Amino acid sequence: MGSIFCGHLSRLVPGAELAAVADPVPGLAERTAAEHGVAHAFVNYRDLLSMADLEAVIIATPASTHADVIEDAARAGRAIFCEKPLALSLEQCDRAIRAVEGAGIPFQIGHMRRFDAGYARARRLIEEGAIGEPVTFKAVGRDPMMPRLDYARPEVSGGLIVDMAIHDFDIGRWLMRSEVTRVFTEGGTLVFDELNTVGDFDNAVINLKFASGALGNVEVSRNALYGYDIRTEVLGSKGAVMIGRFRQTPVLLLTGEGVGYDVVPYITERFGDAYLAEVRHFVRMVQRLEEPGPSIYDGRAGTEIALAATRSYREGRPVTLPLAAAVARDAESTRTPQ
Amino acid sequence: MGSIFCGHLSRLVPGAELAAVADPVPGLAERTAAEHGVAHAFVNYRDLLSMADLEAVIIATPASTHADVIEDAARAGRAIFCEKPLALSLEQCDRAIRAVEGAGIPFQIGHMRRFDAGYARARRLIEEGAIGEPVTFKAVGRDPMMPRLDYARPEVSGGLIVDMAIHDFDIGRWLMRSEVTRVFTEGGTLVFDELNTVGDFDNAVINLKFASGALGNVEVSRNALYGYDIRTEVLGSKGAVMIGRFRQTPVLLLTGEGVGYDVVPYITERFGDAYLAEVRHFVRMVQRLEEPGPSIYDGRAGTEIALAATRSYREGRPVTLPLAAAVARDAESTRTPQ
Amino acid sequence: MGSIFCGHLSRLVPGAELAAVADPVPGLAERTAAEHGVAHAFVNYRDLLSMADLEAVIIATPASTHADVIEDAARAGRAIFCEKPLALSLEQCDRAIRAVEGAGIPFQIGHMRRFDAGYARARRLIEEGAIGEPVTFKAVGRDPMMPRLDYARPEVSGGLIVDMAIHDFDIGRWLMRSEVTRVFTEGGTLVFDELNTVGDFDNAVINLKFASGALGNVEVSRNALYGYDIRTEVLGSKGAVMIGRFRQTPVLLLTGEGVGYDVVPYITERFGDAYLAEVRHFVRMVQRLEEPGPSIYDGRAGTEIALAATRSYREGRPVTLPLAAAVARDAESTRTPQ
Amino acid sequence: MGSIFCGHLSRLVPGAELAAVADPVPGLAERTAAEHGVAHAFVNYRDLLSMADLEAVIIATPASTHADVIEDAARAGRAIFCEKPLALSLEQCDRAIRAVEGAGIPFQIGHMRRFDAGYARARRLIEEGAIGEPVTFKAVGRDPMMPRLDYARPEVSGGLIVDMAIHDFDIGRWLMRSEVTRVFTEGGTLVFDELNTVGDFDNAVINLKFASGALGNVEVSRNALYGYDIRTEVLGSKGAVMIGRFRQTPVLLLTGEGVGYDVVPYITERFGDAYLAEVRHFVRMVQRLEEPGPSIYDGRAGTEIALAATRSYREGRPVTLPLAAAVARDAESTRTPQ
Repeated sequence: MGSIFCGHLSRLVPGAELAAVADPVPGLAERTAAEHGVAHAFVNYRDLLSMADLEAVIIATPASTHADVIEDAARAGRAIFCEKPLALSLEQCDRAIRAVEGAGIPFQIGHMRRFDAGYARARRLIEEGAIGEPVTFKAVGRDPMMPRLDYARPEVSGGLIVDMAIHDFDIGRWLMRSEVTRVFTEGGTLVFDELNTVGDFDNAVINLKFASGALGNVEVSRNALYGYDIRTEVLGSKGAVMIGRFRQTPVLLLTGEGVGYDVVPYITERFGDAYLAEVRHFVRMVQRLEEPGPSIYDGRAGTEIALAATRSYREGRPVTLPLAAAVARDAESTRTPQ
Repeated sequence: MGSIFCGHLSRLVPGAELAAVADPVPGLAERTAAEHGVAHAFVNYRDLLSMADLEAVIIATPASTHADVIEDAARAGRAIFCEKPLALSLEQCDRAIRAVEGAGIPFQIGHMRRFDAGYARARRLIEEGAIGEPVTFKAVGRDPMMPRLDYARPEVSGGLIVDMAIHDFDIGRWLMRSEVTRVFTEGGTLVFDELNTVGDFDNAVINLKFASGALGNVEVSRNALYGYDIRTEVLGSKGAVMIGRFRQTPVLLLTGEGVGYDVVPYITERFGDAYLAEVRHFVRMVQRLEEPGPSIYDGRAGTEIALAATRSYREGRPVTLPLAAAVARDAESTRTPQ
Repeated sequence: MGSIFCGHLSRLVPGAELAAVADPVPGLAERTAAEHGVAHAFVNYRDLLSMADLEAVIIATPASTHADVIEDAARAGRAIFCEKPLALSLEQCDRAIRAVEGAGIPFQIGHMRRFDAGYARARRLIEEGAIGEPVTFKAVGRDPMMPRLDYARPEVSGGLIVDMAIHDFDIGRWLMRSEVTRVFTEGGTLVFDELNTVGDFDNAVINLKFASGALGNVEVSRNALYGYDIRTEVLGSKGAVMIGRFRQTPVLLLTGEGVGYDVVPYITERFGDAYLAEVRHFVRMVQRLEEPGPSIYDGRAGTEIALAATRSYREGRPVTLPLAAAVARDAESTRTPQ
Repeated sequence: MGSIFCGHLSRLVPGAELAAVADPVPGLAERTAAEHGVAHAFVNYRDLLSMADLEAVIIATPASTHADVIEDAARAGRAIFCEKPLALSLEQCDRAIRAVEGAGIPFQIGHMRRFDAGYARARRLIEEGAIGEPVTFKAVGRDPMMPRLDYARPEVSGGLIVDMAIHDFDIGRWLMRSEVTRVFTEGGTLVFDELNTVGDFDNAVINLKFASGALGNVEVSRNALYGYDIRTEVLGSKGAVMIGRFRQTPVLLLTGEGVGYDVVPYITERFGDAYLAEVRHFVRMVQRLEEPGPSIYDGRAGTEIALAATRSYREGRPVTLPLAAAVARDAESTRTPQ
């Protein structure tokens, strides 16, 4: 992700100038900087943060380090864009929130799906009342391959649900315009037994209850060997909206064996435009040309649902989210444009 | 349904001769008999059962009466086709099973989706290993309208889940080739408040756990105001199969407002061929030309899951199914061709 | 086709009683009659025509015999349904027309596509002005296999264009509500060289000019080895309508090889309902319960275009249709409901 | 187009440095140069051509000026990328060819569809034999609006067929791997009467005959008011390949009115990636890192077919192309990768 953001910032984001790159792997920051024509490269991100004239940073480090890096960047007064998930525990999330609130800096969480043309159009249709009141939220999020084992371990990526379903939880809150109050997860390691060795699993279906009374179900899987398959639908009182496709090129091959087409291979093919759009939005937000996008509270809310859904899987019971305060505070965030 | 079966039996089912019709509503049996050129009409179905030379009966009475009628028909030694659901309680199911087992008569439950060309092809593909091991079962079953209130009441139709999701539970057992061992339901009355007055509700999402370890989720809704929407998919270890469509005619209209097509209005448009095929199968099974189709044990299994899922909704907790015996006994039924 | 009509008439057409079957092949009429429970079977169709109490006949003989059989049936005063094409020459067409006009009997030509739900809906949309004024008519008609050589010969079936494109010409006249005034054909024997031995060919693209000024192009092919592929579209001044599909079951299989689905194998799978609907319409028309459907003049018009398009292919030049009289006379037929 | 190319070259094409812009409209070159951070701006393109250190030029002037500008650029020894069509007459084409051949410079014509992922995949599938021998080429090219009248006039844009169908002719030659030898056009001004005032028209269907014996039909229209609709298919001896889509976002809206989706509005939404890819290819070709793409001979061939098809429309007769020499010379160009 860091490399993708470098590519975007160095060439495709009007108003942005990519000043420096930091990476703890020896030599990697230099290589990336050279590739993108960036003047400065650091091993220690704190050196980057102490540069003069630095307005904003993009954090694409492992999730377990997000809270620490956010604290440091906030202390340095830099606007922050942070990849999802915000953190791996609510304690970390709250620490990051305190730092950002204390510094009064702009912040955006990397929930890029809100910037996809399809999801954005769905949100507009729902806001316009095209499907009446949202009743049921459905999402499928399927990856085409097992992740590397060192990444899969819950203390690194958060595990299946934190790593993958957080996108669906965020889009669910955003499209349904309501907070999740209860989750129940069925899951298992059904294809990639190796995942058990690091404490992860490969498939889950997660029932959701929203504060509005609406329902939901999110499926995540690591074994869609046919390709990258992200589909979402919202059923409302007067209609429904479906978002997503898995078809890649608009080519049909018709032979005696039937009709066939190819499938989007992975996330950059499906959401490449959204990754660019979210960074453009962040830059314009820092320039005060655009309203804030998905907030640090959105980041916390997605993480909270994902942690509760993981707990539900572990404990075999529904888990209720302690939302009294959150609902009040986040009410606005699910209602802002992005 | 009774009228549809009459139409099929009187004209479209080779080898069948429709001998008589019974209906407790005064005059209705006569009218139906006249319409389809049937010689005999009765108010009391027991008079029909006592006819000489009667080989088989089709039961399309209210679900609450199924067990009683099955007992009487079994006692009379008639082969039985019974509409779904088998009954509204496990006690009734077991009473029906004892009667059928005691009489040693052929029996088929009206799970017509197994006879739909799409579902049948999906089952073949799965049996052939096209998607590897089944991992996750997903089903959407949406009706385009609220049912009549007198039908919606749980003591008549069984309520939302028994009435509608039973089709999905049966197809799930059949495609996944495994029994359901745990269910958890989120639901609510979100659109048609009147349903509350008779103790029914209009939307549910039901998580499933299968004996094989596989997962599932079934959504049922009464408010797909756009049409009748039945879709099913099975994700496997090597691929996936998706069954269903909601498009009616193969006509696209393209104007300045966008592209549009129409939607299947309701169940007879979508499953008309399957309703005919299941009766043809039943007749050939009675003639010993065909293996048995969905059995009385399939009928019980679907009812048991539906009752458990309804209880889960009422009690807000996962419900485990007491399947020790059932799994052993039904093992075969989920593995037979239909 | 005769056998299909027998099946429909003996069981599926309210108000019709199938009285007799005739077939010159020794024994075949008896066999067909037995199969469908018909009382009378003849070798010579004239014996059938002389039966008392016969109201109507369906002619499904080879096209080269249509005119003769129509003359005999008209003389006998029977209402006539005749399979397409009406005949293989305009002289034969006009002979048939004179006989039918002279006898004053009901007549319907077997242009079944007008009875397909998709084409019927397209016609309604166009009549309602949904696409503005029709501008361009496009049709693809592809068969999945080479016909038998004895059938392919032009003196039997009329050859590629008369045999296949006549459906598209009729639907073109019906949807565009205008007569064809000029045709130009490119064609060739590109796959099945054997067709050359009997004077037929396997592929053609036919440009059309309509009296209204509108344009058209019809493609016919015998080598769609992937299945039966019939698609039609009309572009109008305000939009377009597209009719057709080649997908068979609503099943998608998704694997590492891509996504695939199956294709409608042939005409009875695609147009089975339309074949039944056209016979039902004919019977109700004979009973004076329904307006006339596609007329003998429609049959002549389709044949005339097909013959002109075949001549264009042979001579490598555009062929203008002598339509002065035809346009006047047929004006109504392209504007009637079916 | 010039502005699009500036945007690409200034930011998105590795290895390219945009040195100067020229535009005869006073002030426009300066404005464009400022917008894209380009150092030099000229009113007279000859001043640009005389710059030192200039390696290549992109010509996006009106088609009527292409030949002159190519001659000047070739004389200056610059590699040339020229927008389609190559020119508006064969005399101009041949003048341009002589200049380019004489100077021995790299040249690429702007047939961007060859760089679209869908068309490129179709070409690979055909080369791999997936559909057997190509038999019939079909193309639909529909614009969503009438062009400005001053652009529509044949002496500026070449008129409907030269302006639009040239893309389809090029893709047809490329996918069929054969030259066009005969064309026949039906056309008319059916929607936008104003076009008659400048000698243009709005709809055409063009039959094609290829040297291989294969057939084709190309439809072009200016009145697809529903959106930009580009579809192509090739039927082969063993299957078919279809390329294209008109759907924009992957969003379905389902309501009581039916199901609807949106349509690609115009060319930059559909072919934006291809426009970028062709310029990247040109730059790499100049750097000798890539084989030549569509050549000046491809440019001439497309123009020749378009001029013949326009003549056919005017004269109401098939027009044969004098291809003896061209077939020999261009044989290779239809067989090279792009």
